[in-house]
Amino acid sequence: MDDQADATNSSNAAVAEDTDRLLRGQARLAEITGRSGQEVMAALGDVAPDFARYIFEFGYGDIYSRPGLDLRARMLATVAGLVCLGHAARELRVHIGSALNVGATREEVVEVIMQMALYAGFPAALDALMIAKEVFADRGLAAKAD
Amino acid sequence: MDDQADATNSSNAAVAEDTDRLLRGQARLAEITGRSGQEVMAALGDVAPDFARYIFEFGYGDIYSRPGLDLRARMLATVAGLVCLGHAARELRVHIGSALNVGATREEVVEVIMQMALYAGFPAALDALMIAKEVFADRGLAAKAD
Amino acid sequence: MDDQADATNSSNAAVAEDTDRLLRGQARLAEITGRSGQEVMAALGDVAPDFARYIFEFGYGDIYSRPGLDLRARMLATVAGLVCLGHAARELRVHIGSALNVGATREEVVEVIMQMALYAGFPAALDALMIAKEVFADRGLAAKAD
Amino acid sequence: MDDQADATNSSNAAVAEDTDRLLRGQARLAEITGRSGQEVMAALGDVAPDFARYIFEFGYGDIYSRPGLDLRARMLATVAGLVCLGHAARELRVHIGSALNVGATREEVVEVIMQMALYAGFPAALDALMIAKEVFADRGLAAKAD
Amino acid sequence: MDDQADATNSSNAAVAEDTDRLLRGQARLAEITGRSGQEVMAALGDVAPDFARYIFEFGYGDIYSRPGLDLRARMLATVAGLVCLGHAARELRVHIGSALNVGATREEVVEVIMQMALYAGFPAALDALMIAKEVFADRGLAAKAD
Amino acid sequence: MDDQADATNSSNAAVAEDTDRLLRGQARLAEITGRSGQEVMAALGDVAPDFARYIFEFGYGDIYSRPGLDLRARMLATVAGLVCLGHAARELRVHIGSALNVGATREEVVEVIMQMALYAGFPAALDALMIAKEVFADRGLAAKAD
Repeated sequence: MDDQADATNSSNAAVAEDTDRLLRGQARLAEITGRSGQEVMAALGDVAPDFARYIFEFGYGDIYSRPGLDLRARMLATVAGLVCLGHAARELRVHIGSALNVGATREEVVEVIMQMALYAGFPAALDALMIAKEVFADRGLAAKAD
Repeated sequence: MDDQADATNSSNAAVAEDTDRLLRGQARLAEITGRSGQEVMAALGDVAPDFARYIFEFGYGDIYSRPGLDLRARMLATVAGLVCLGHAARELRVHIGSALNVGATREEVVEVIMQMALYAGFPAALDALMIAKEVFADRGLAAKAD
Repeated sequence: MDDQADATNSSNAAVAEDTDRLLRGQARLAEITGRSGQEVMAALGDVAPDFARYIFEFGYGDIYSRPGLDLRARMLATVAGLVCLGHAARELRVHIGSALNVGATREEVVEVIMQMALYAGFPAALDALMIAKEVFADRGLAAKAD
Repeated sequence: MDDQADATNSSNAAVAEDTDRLLRGQARLAEITGRSGQEVMAALGDVAPDFARYIFEFGYGDIYSRPGLDLRARMLATVAGLVCLGHAARELRVHIGSALNVGATREEVVEVIMQMALYAGFPAALDALMIAKEVFADRGLAAKAD
Repeated sequence: MDDQADATNSSNAAVAEDTDRLLRGQARLAEITGRSGQEVMAALGDVAPDFARYIFEFGYGDIYSRPGLDLRARMLATVAGLVCLGHAARELRVHIGSALNVGATREEVVEVIMQMALYAGFPAALDALMIAKEVFADRGLAAKAD
Repeated sequence: MDDQADATNSSNAAVAEDTDRLLRGQARLAEITGRSGQEVMAALGDVAPDFARYIFEFGYGDIYSRPGLDLRARMLATVAGLVCLGHAARELRVHIGSALNVGATREEVVEVIMQMALYAGFPAALDALMIAKEVFADRGLAAKAD
């Protein structure tokens, strides 16, 4: 192959891989959160479209596409992490939903949040339970009878 | 039963339940962290013995004795939460060990920590990986060949 | 006493002690925050009733029932801690009220919040002052004339 | 000069310097944030007037009156810091505006916020971008065409 | 007085007030922390002498010189706040000492730290207790017999 | 082109783009931090080699390779952000160095850190100044004479 063809291929390659990670990430985003790439882009597109792209490519195309840990454990870990950040109400709402989407039960989500009271304190856990309560209500998930 | 007997029983009851939660908690602590209650008491006993008691009773006797979520998912969630706190190096070292103790693999621990870079940033995840590296080395756990 | 009686007593004891800490905690909660256990249970009861129980038993039955520090200093310390967390608006509102309930003055609450600007920065202190302003207004507490 | 005159001068001096830092700070506040000292005092005056004074004197009269770094770099650094705090939505809104006021472009503000995803995680950066979007819209700032 | 004298006086006034706040702050620093201004200046003098000055003037000359709250309650509040920050080990060591210096007991310091487990989680409280243990040991303070 | 050639090209493309971002990131890392990719890989290679790759590809190949903001302002913003995180001592040391590497002065770094006392509090700023002092000393940077 001559040099010109090389350069063309390399440029094509970059576009192809960008497209690969982007599409893989958008598919994974939809699978986990139930939200389409368009929704994320609608929120970010006129202020920071590249940030939406990083969420797709790095967040979901790289990290959440990794093997080595099942999605249910991944999303319960994410819920735990977000409770401990303390300030991540928006993300917590999304990913309590994600945990349910990938097979965690309502009870398991509540267990993880309550457990974080040990590490992040009661206020962070209490705020998270209030968010969980709303997510459960939106989905019509009743508490199991004790 | 007369009143005096009632009072005696009630007092005995309080002692009995205290003992129940305490012993259950110490057993759970040992199962999860591999540390005995004596070790924790040795660290805290001359400054805040009641704090050691709360760790046993509330931390392990109440929270970590709950059904509803398997221990492996619990400890991976704890690792995630501690990474996001940012400042919990001491606890992170203990509970990376706990996660391994209850059946999580080295690879799963690393996955959870790397995933938290999305939520807590790269420095918190990087610090946690350095701690994980030391815990793995202490246990002679080699990385799996790629 | 024979073994069967022992087992019965031990089971009764556990119930008795649970009831002791629970009732003591609910009474302490009401004394400090002015909120009844029912209110807390109303918020949490259909999502995490056990979390309400831990608030009663551990939060108020254990910690806030300890001797060794007067309630006024305890609640001013809690206000200070919540300002430094940064994210605990809900709890801050409750416990600015608690501090007033147990004898701290409006002026003392403001002093503690302003002092935290040194440690948590001005934005956290400013947000807390805005919450304090609302709590004072709800109670019809006027600033003292300078 | 006799002793009495000395004492009078010293007292006058204190008042004069207070006035100097206060006025310098209020002027700097207006230059940077576009808000007058009266606005800040209106918010704080009936709860903590001295806190408003510290904002003027220490925040703007001391810190933001320092030479050694241009205001554009100062305000971009402040935006970065506030993103990393995670909880400072109110201040972030003010100081994204401040950054624009002192000559930073919309694009530069977005760059700084996106960069903080590396250090504070995606949720903190995403929340900040949503605030930036509102500030830009309030000012009628369109994104530059790509 | 003519204009030139006015200007001279105003300049003198600024120097005088700076000196007032500085000296008042250094005296208050010594009273509370037991550290002299020279020690702080020795640490900061070759990197940021103005920061030492702000600690004296604003931290101790303004904030810690305010009436309206007794020093014992102030320092217990500071200990609480520093526990909740999570990352302030250096300051926590200094101000656990300060709390003892201004009349708080060893027991009260421990109570405040344990209470913060409710708000900042067990790891932050545990780290603080380990620091308190060292401060108590340095001062030869034995735990009171139970 | 037939299907088989397509598949081969697509696979080659992915490898090519991975290589592009990786090499661009490693070059940018070296330019900014003065550290080679090998050093980072030496620290992470046996625990989480993919994390090193993400640092190269996403951190430096994507974020720090963006136009729209000069490197000096970028690194001063990073220093500000790291001060506000509170727990990022390791990264702060690296990026105080980075700021100097890309043209910021010692004085500018100190200004940014002192300014963050307003937002993150004095302890976080003080810890950062102590780190800056060490970095300056390692480089033989003397304070400018006042």
